[in-house]
Amino acid sequence: MPSAEFWYEFASTYSYPAALRVAALAEARGVSLVWRPFLLGPIFAAQGWRDSPFNLYPAKGRYMWRDLERTCAAMGVPLKRPNPFPQPSLLAARVALALEGDQRAHFSRRVFAAEFGEGMAIGDRATLGALLTDCGIDPAAGFERAESDANKARLKAECARAAEIGIIGAPSIVAHDGEVFWGNDRLEQGLDWAAARAAKSP
Amino acid sequence: MPSAEFWYEFASTYSYPAALRVAALAEARGVSLVWRPFLLGPIFAAQGWRDSPFNLYPAKGRYMWRDLERTCAAMGVPLKRPNPFPQPSLLAARVALALEGDQRAHFSRRVFAAEFGEGMAIGDRATLGALLTDCGIDPAAGFERAESDANKARLKAECARAAEIGIIGAPSIVAHDGEVFWGNDRLEQGLDWAAARAAKSP
Repeated sequence: MPSAEFWYEFASTYSYPAALRVAALAEARGVSLVWRPFLLGPIFAAQGWRDSPFNLYPAKGRYMWRDLERTCAAMGVPLKRPNPFPQPSLLAARVALALEGDQRAHFSRRVFAAEFGEGMAIGDRATLGALLTDCGIDPAAGFERAESDANKARLKAECARAAEIGIIGAPSIVAHDGEVFWGNDRLEQGLDWAAARAAKSP
Repeated sequence: MPSAEFWYEFASTYSYPAALRVAALAEARGVSLVWRPFLLGPIFAAQGWRDSPFNLYPAKGRYMWRDLERTCAAMGVPLKRPNPFPQPSLLAARVALALEGDQRAHFSRRVFAAEFGEGMAIGDRATLGALLTDCGIDPAAGFERAESDANKARLKAECARAAEIGIIGAPSIVAHDGEVFWGNDRLEQGLDWAAARAAKSP
């Protein structure tokens, strides 16, 4: 079965529609998907950015929010801008990484829906705890795993890996052969690539 | 008949596939298209960039060239990176703006094909002159109109207009109601928007 990775960042606006779309797109192509939460902070910092480029370049930010409005309207999903933007995403990323398989995907979609669909503060421990409960996970156990030294180190390694393989933004699809496809508008192309390349393998 | 504007910059990599695709996409939707060449320099300068962001941020540049390779391969068109990148595009923009209608579109496609399909230097007067000749336009007359004070002022006004209406990059589709769609991957959406909104008008 062909496989691909879905790299996403909870503070990233376009990761929101992507997280809602990607599972069905992968399934339709017979592609097995690995959800890989990471942080864009270190990647942006390497480019000299200490804030979201959408804040640093206001014209770009205005365009992005309007584009995202159109994207969400076309999908029929709500959009409510969280304040502040970007939201602190470290704890959410740690919690997601400490989960596995379907639980990780399910929790991640809930976080995005809360953050960008309802404008909730996902840096807040109580918010994340309630989302964990909704997913049938005990919050205390979830946070304990999330904040273990091993899991913190694992998230750091994920961020380093992202930079190493040429990821420059989120969301990104990475095919099993290393091809990187950046953006909510590249999900189909990335998954098509993964499906087609795998079909050619012996 | 619904209408839309196609804003493009000769130094812009993604304007190349867009220029080759956009006429057929507009025609299929019954959208009348106005080709509007402009310069990104003033828009980038307003963001503090003195070079292409693809040069300023090398990781982003590496991704862009690979993404463009895939885009061109999928379209079956050649890609040869011009050196230097970006190419000086002022003269080409002036020449294109001094042409009208189909001549402008035809000449513009030829410039893009020479620059990114063959890696030619489009800042070069002899290159542009040969392309004008290919389009059935007398080069001397073409350059004279291009470099008139009136045409120079017109191009400046186009650049100011682009910034004013919220254009942040090239290519962009601008619908008659002012909606801006940025990127080669937004051509379809922008033209769909223009066609749908016009259909609703009385």
